[in-house]
Amino acid sequence: MERNIGVAQTSEQQSGAPKSLLERYQAARALTEALAEPLSPEDQTLQIDWFASPTKWHLAHVSWFFETFVLEPTIPDYEGFHPAYREFFNSYYNAVGDQFPQAERGRLSRPSVREVMAYRRHVDDLVIETLSKHGEEELGELADVVELGIHHEQQHQELLLTDIKFALSHNPLYPVYKERKIPDMEAPPLRWTPYEEGVRWIGTDGGEFIFDNEGPRHRVFLDAYQLANRPVTNGEFIEFIEDGGYERPDHWLALGWKTVLQEGWSAPLYWIKRDGEWHTYTLSGLRKAEPSEPVCHVSYFEADAYARWSGSRLPTEAEWEAAGEGVPIEGRFVDDGHAHPLPAVENGHALTQMFGDIWEWTSSHYSPYPGYTTVNGALGEYNGKFMCNQFTLRGGSCATSRNHIRRTYRNFFPPHLRWQFMGFRLAKDA
Amino acid sequence: MERNIGVAQTSEQQSGAPKSLLERYQAARALTEALAEPLSPEDQTLQIDWFASPTKWHLAHVSWFFETFVLEPTIPDYEGFHPAYREFFNSYYNAVGDQFPQAERGRLSRPSVREVMAYRRHVDDLVIETLSKHGEEELGELADVVELGIHHEQQHQELLLTDIKFALSHNPLYPVYKERKIPDMEAPPLRWTPYEEGVRWIGTDGGEFIFDNEGPRHRVFLDAYQLANRPVTNGEFIEFIEDGGYERPDHWLALGWKTVLQEGWSAPLYWIKRDGEWHTYTLSGLRKAEPSEPVCHVSYFEADAYARWSGSRLPTEAEWEAAGEGVPIEGRFVDDGHAHPLPAVENGHALTQMFGDIWEWTSSHYSPYPGYTTVNGALGEYNGKFMCNQFTLRGGSCATSRNHIRRTYRNFFPPHLRWQFMGFRLAKDA
Amino acid sequence: MERNIGVAQTSEQQSGAPKSLLERYQAARALTEALAEPLSPEDQTLQIDWFASPTKWHLAHVSWFFETFVLEPTIPDYEGFHPAYREFFNSYYNAVGDQFPQAERGRLSRPSVREVMAYRRHVDDLVIETLSKHGEEELGELADVVELGIHHEQQHQELLLTDIKFALSHNPLYPVYKERKIPDMEAPPLRWTPYEEGVRWIGTDGGEFIFDNEGPRHRVFLDAYQLANRPVTNGEFIEFIEDGGYERPDHWLALGWKTVLQEGWSAPLYWIKRDGEWHTYTLSGLRKAEPSEPVCHVSYFEADAYARWSGSRLPTEAEWEAAGEGVPIEGRFVDDGHAHPLPAVENGHALTQMFGDIWEWTSSHYSPYPGYTTVNGALGEYNGKFMCNQFTLRGGSCATSRNHIRRTYRNFFPPHLRWQFMGFRLAKDA
Amino acid sequence: MERNIGVAQTSEQQSGAPKSLLERYQAARALTEALAEPLSPEDQTLQIDWFASPTKWHLAHVSWFFETFVLEPTIPDYEGFHPAYREFFNSYYNAVGDQFPQAERGRLSRPSVREVMAYRRHVDDLVIETLSKHGEEELGELADVVELGIHHEQQHQELLLTDIKFALSHNPLYPVYKERKIPDMEAPPLRWTPYEEGVRWIGTDGGEFIFDNEGPRHRVFLDAYQLANRPVTNGEFIEFIEDGGYERPDHWLALGWKTVLQEGWSAPLYWIKRDGEWHTYTLSGLRKAEPSEPVCHVSYFEADAYARWSGSRLPTEAEWEAAGEGVPIEGRFVDDGHAHPLPAVENGHALTQMFGDIWEWTSSHYSPYPGYTTVNGALGEYNGKFMCNQFTLRGGSCATSRNHIRRTYRNFFPPHLRWQFMGFRLAKDA
Repeated sequence: MERNIGVAQTSEQQSGAPKSLLERYQAARALTEALAEPLSPEDQTLQIDWFASPTKWHLAHVSWFFETFVLEPTIPDYEGFHPAYREFFNSYYNAVGDQFPQAERGRLSRPSVREVMAYRRHVDDLVIETLSKHGEEELGELADVVELGIHHEQQHQELLLTDIKFALSHNPLYPVYKERKIPDMEAPPLRWTPYEEGVRWIGTDGGEFIFDNEGPRHRVFLDAYQLANRPVTNGEFIEFIEDGGYERPDHWLALGWKTVLQEGWSAPLYWIKRDGEWHTYTLSGLRKAEPSEPVCHVSYFEADAYARWSGSRLPTEAEWEAAGEGVPIEGRFVDDGHAHPLPAVENGHALTQMFGDIWEWTSSHYSPYPGYTTVNGALGEYNGKFMCNQFTLRGGSCATSRNHIRRTYRNFFPPHLRWQFMGFRLAKDA
Repeated sequence: MERNIGVAQTSEQQSGAPKSLLERYQAARALTEALAEPLSPEDQTLQIDWFASPTKWHLAHVSWFFETFVLEPTIPDYEGFHPAYREFFNSYYNAVGDQFPQAERGRLSRPSVREVMAYRRHVDDLVIETLSKHGEEELGELADVVELGIHHEQQHQELLLTDIKFALSHNPLYPVYKERKIPDMEAPPLRWTPYEEGVRWIGTDGGEFIFDNEGPRHRVFLDAYQLANRPVTNGEFIEFIEDGGYERPDHWLALGWKTVLQEGWSAPLYWIKRDGEWHTYTLSGLRKAEPSEPVCHVSYFEADAYARWSGSRLPTEAEWEAAGEGVPIEGRFVDDGHAHPLPAVENGHALTQMFGDIWEWTSSHYSPYPGYTTVNGALGEYNGKFMCNQFTLRGGSCATSRNHIRRTYRNFFPPHLRWQFMGFRLAKDA
Repeated sequence: MERNIGVAQTSEQQSGAPKSLLERYQAARALTEALAEPLSPEDQTLQIDWFASPTKWHLAHVSWFFETFVLEPTIPDYEGFHPAYREFFNSYYNAVGDQFPQAERGRLSRPSVREVMAYRRHVDDLVIETLSKHGEEELGELADVVELGIHHEQQHQELLLTDIKFALSHNPLYPVYKERKIPDMEAPPLRWTPYEEGVRWIGTDGGEFIFDNEGPRHRVFLDAYQLANRPVTNGEFIEFIEDGGYERPDHWLALGWKTVLQEGWSAPLYWIKRDGEWHTYTLSGLRKAEPSEPVCHVSYFEADAYARWSGSRLPTEAEWEAAGEGVPIEGRFVDDGHAHPLPAVENGHALTQMFGDIWEWTSSHYSPYPGYTTVNGALGEYNGKFMCNQFTLRGGSCATSRNHIRRTYRNFFPPHLRWQFMGFRLAKDA
Repeated sequence: MERNIGVAQTSEQQSGAPKSLLERYQAARALTEALAEPLSPEDQTLQIDWFASPTKWHLAHVSWFFETFVLEPTIPDYEGFHPAYREFFNSYYNAVGDQFPQAERGRLSRPSVREVMAYRRHVDDLVIETLSKHGEEELGELADVVELGIHHEQQHQELLLTDIKFALSHNPLYPVYKERKIPDMEAPPLRWTPYEEGVRWIGTDGGEFIFDNEGPRHRVFLDAYQLANRPVTNGEFIEFIEDGGYERPDHWLALGWKTVLQEGWSAPLYWIKRDGEWHTYTLSGLRKAEPSEPVCHVSYFEADAYARWSGSRLPTEAEWEAAGEGVPIEGRFVDDGHAHPLPAVENGHALTQMFGDIWEWTSSHYSPYPGYTTVNGALGEYNGKFMCNQFTLRGGSCATSRNHIRRTYRNFFPPHLRWQFMGFRLAKDA
């Protein structure tokens, strides 16, 4: 995948009878368009930095994925909706061919949003025709590719939200994507849960759909450790800021401190101090930084510095995954893509808010599991080639697709990026 | 002004009875909108480089000019259409206040095109009300400011065209702004007209509307010189290219050669070689580079190098202006903003195509005339502060407003820029 | 440490009776100066890039280390040799105070080499006096700091060599640091040694001197794997080049391929093709790339791409360390600092050339071992704060100090750097 | 020339009988070496920015000039002192061949200072032999080239001083090049001298040695104007600073203000405020900014902003040259290259300190005079190709060669550079 993404599911998707591949395809496609709906053509064209793409580009790219990997190999003499799109909407698949430069996606005012929607219709018609003609088993490997395409589109739903938040945040008007109320809640006090040393099984070999980087299932030896019951909150992070956390190099990695100085960081991304109080830009506009909510939009560097300052550390991804065994997935999923992290509440479990609130930075570099190999061809470029200078995040955010929320899912980003819904949970040696 | 700009007039404007200030205001405002009309909201949001602004920004900025310099000083307790616009649409007037960064104008997806049009309506209503209430003489100095605002808007009409051409040119689809046919014509052979040495009067102190940099009228001593009857053509420039003009430093200024290497220039801007033939991107798409048309979209460096290669030189602006005395302004003005330089034809004058085809680079640095001073206040920032590292251009292009076409008009750009409709005419010592 | 460094020992150091702390101090100090001796004051002032310091700066910085951490806390009212040196020669110790910018060390023509040597004499006199006055046990913790200072100086001996090689390589004259002959040898054929799965102990808690990042000793679970008997050779790497290794993205990490394009890499650092044959710049000038020698001066990216191309992978650092157990350290150490990797020879062991030839890239990100903590104060900045976006290397090069050569030593560099003596050995799943 | 340079003459050179070409050659060569003498090999290797070359490079380049333009065309089968030097020490003569990159001259630790001095000896021996064999008239055009080479070397003597000042200024030790006392003096009050309008002859066609850009002699029309009796002083410039001159954009050119913000300028180059008082770094170390001395090391932007702030303007170069007619050249020339601008004193002339104190910025862009042409071949690259985005300076500084001091001499630099001894004098309309 480009980056692990996804979006909370509609209530329909979260319950009820299992859906067919076709139904799931249609639901995913519809949700993407619903997410783009509140945005004007001008909004959908914006690109501020290389890593965050225009809405319009996301809408087209996920269609390109189906066109390239489903329609092209299936339909004889398939010619493509438009000769330029093969390059325009290829993200990074060298095996498919050249790519329009990632940093310049915002330069393409044409095709317009309207033309991109026509492209979506064209692809939908042909995919639906293909899926309708054949039973799922008859489709064989093609069904797997459609399944991957659905998950891929769900990943881009999350990116669509994080990218438009990033783009709109550069407008001094603090534009509203969608109005939304956040309920008041209290965060429980910080508590530590201990785990024994020993060899643990990590990763999965599937069953249901998984991404290739989640396996092979393998053993790791873990020393005894402890994990915090909930993520670090805004209120706690403000203490770090007020203690001079961004002003002294003591607790920072060398590269982190360099970044603080170069970028002039003095708070998480989207934080602004107004009249002595911290505010944060959200998809429903600027609002007060709620002390009980998990701190969000922090880099690995900030998470690591906070942990050191507080006398603890970040967990490894194996520690996180091992501890997550048996923890029920009962996030407060947002049904409309209006993403916002929520405050913690006591729920009777040792660990809370592991899933569906914020992505949690781990101290683990994003490396292949033992025995990991990539598939041949373009789809082999999905995950493996990004395993360098990125750190893994676990759990999934409020903007993550409900069916991406699982204990083994590995998200990953470079340590200086902050525009995803990223926070962290503390760990300690036993 | 930001940069000298303007646009060809509607036929109505080019003939008939003199128009009132109000009529001229309305005609200018209407033409700006007509020029933007073929562009989608996505097109109108694009900014590719700091120097070329989004269409939408031009539409708003020229309104801001009237709001700031006409409405604000006139209407008691005037509050402004929107509190953010004072900064968003201030181009460079430090005396008015802060400016949203020029290079980031493309980051503002909001206000939308629709909202910008509402802003225009609001400003129009109030300006028209103001102009209707008072006679022109009663308006006094305010009439001068409205007049300046009209010319300012006309300058931005030219910029709107050159900027959208620049933006769209980065799209591999070669988007069409407006379809258009160019008539076939032959360029006359190159001939030289001689001029005597002596003291000549240069510049103007007005009468009609002029920009402040066109005066004071003053004397310069000119040695005897000769001027070419027409601009250098595409056909002639291709000879320069084929003779290795872009491959050898001999004829280039040191700074020009450095630019050639850094930018990888091998032809004028928008030129592309296809199947062995030079093509050029125009507002009506990609088309063959017509040998008889004036070469266009060349920098000062390229004009200067060609001149040296051909054994001649560029004229000074005084030489150009002195020679232009008595030459009738009879350009082939484009009535719809669909800008395109045209081939020369014999017209019985010694000098042809001086006006309204392409801006002609002169060898003169853009310096103040003797005795030049700026007015006090923000409008003093219009011209004077740009008199450094720019060279003057004379004559006006096919995209220049008809009523900016005059012998004394001084356009100016840094020597490496090429996105205006820029060409050149040769000169020689006697 | 700034970066793990060191240098091969004089023959005297490699054998004979154990030496006293004072003797070891004196030997290390003398070797640093011997290494600088062939270089002119002009050579010793050069800095080409931020990461490679001038010889003169190394000579002063290692003295600053003793002055700051040994003399200052020991000698009452110690005032420092020169008030500016505290900042000039502080590498990265924020707890000590400000640092002269790393990238600008080459701007300090003063102090001259002569003055730096006087600084060394001053520090030597006082350290020797301190060590002579007290027995090693009486010195207590101070002895540990002196020991660390000696190892620190040995690390900078290696850096001095790699940095001057980098600096001189930018001179088209291919300057000779020291003339030297390389014996002809054959590389043995590639063979694989298998290792069983299981929990293994990794790291060390000391005994002899170790750096803090080598511990704590801890358990890891390893799946079964195989390791190559020797590093990849120049001859093998040339096959990769000739197969288009640098021209196709297939085998590269995304970040690696981006680096290839940005930097225009087409071969290892210092490689030049002349008359159809690959040559490489060495400290004894330009010479033919010997097919049997280990390939050297490759980045992590190149090592990883080669491994993928060859159908294998790089080992993790735990795999490397576990396999190294019992392998005798019998490198061909260079006694005069004239560093050059050597060809492999059969030696009766399963694994050869693990130590003292080239640093071997592993696939492991440089992360803290479980339970790792840093000491308080400035010396806590020695290693821990660099644990981000670096990969570990094992074994030690021909320029590494003999007493840094051990199985647990962890060197580390960002994946794009190539100026150390870096190569790699292949691994495979069982 | 690279840039107009030169250096004050020894007293011997300033008086006495006219010297032969050979004597002048030897005197110039000796002075260059005397100027380099106080500098260590480390000092002589430094390059901080692209525009300021290492001392060592100057020493070699001026020799390269004689080798390339005198020895090569004269001595049959001349082979060159070293094959690499043709490229290493070619500054910018494309007609001679490739050039080692200007910004990387500081990377060449080899050849050493010692080797460069051997190169000088070699060139000297052959030039002296050539000059001794033939009479000056017999030499013909070659004598002109030797003459040009002498003036070229004198220009580089000035650059050697300004460049080493720039390099050493980056060392927080404020290194002393040579100790020197400055006499105390008072600046006379500011007075204005008026000049009539009319056609004036400007430039010169020679007689004695001149650079090609000083001609052809030609007529310009000047409006009536006034010129200040002396340059602006440090004391006056401090008033500008204290009035917020660097904090408000009002008086600045747009490009100037951008530079102020980008570079963080708040005073002239080399100025430092200590204990509430302005100090300035000089070649004899840091000293108080003497109120009566001409302000020095200001850019065109600062000169222009000051002039506007004070209600006046800079003179054009024609105004300066016309006013300078008949003003005696009686500077306080420094006989040892220890450059320092001096305070003004009353001297009975209307205008003082025109020559030999500081270069004075004019408002004139560096353009060719009417009829200017360059010679064919490499020497045609000496001046003409730099006529873009530079402004002329007149008069000569304390570091300028005495025999470059004349009314028609045109120095030129880009408007943002400050490292030459640059100041300014005010002008006004009549």
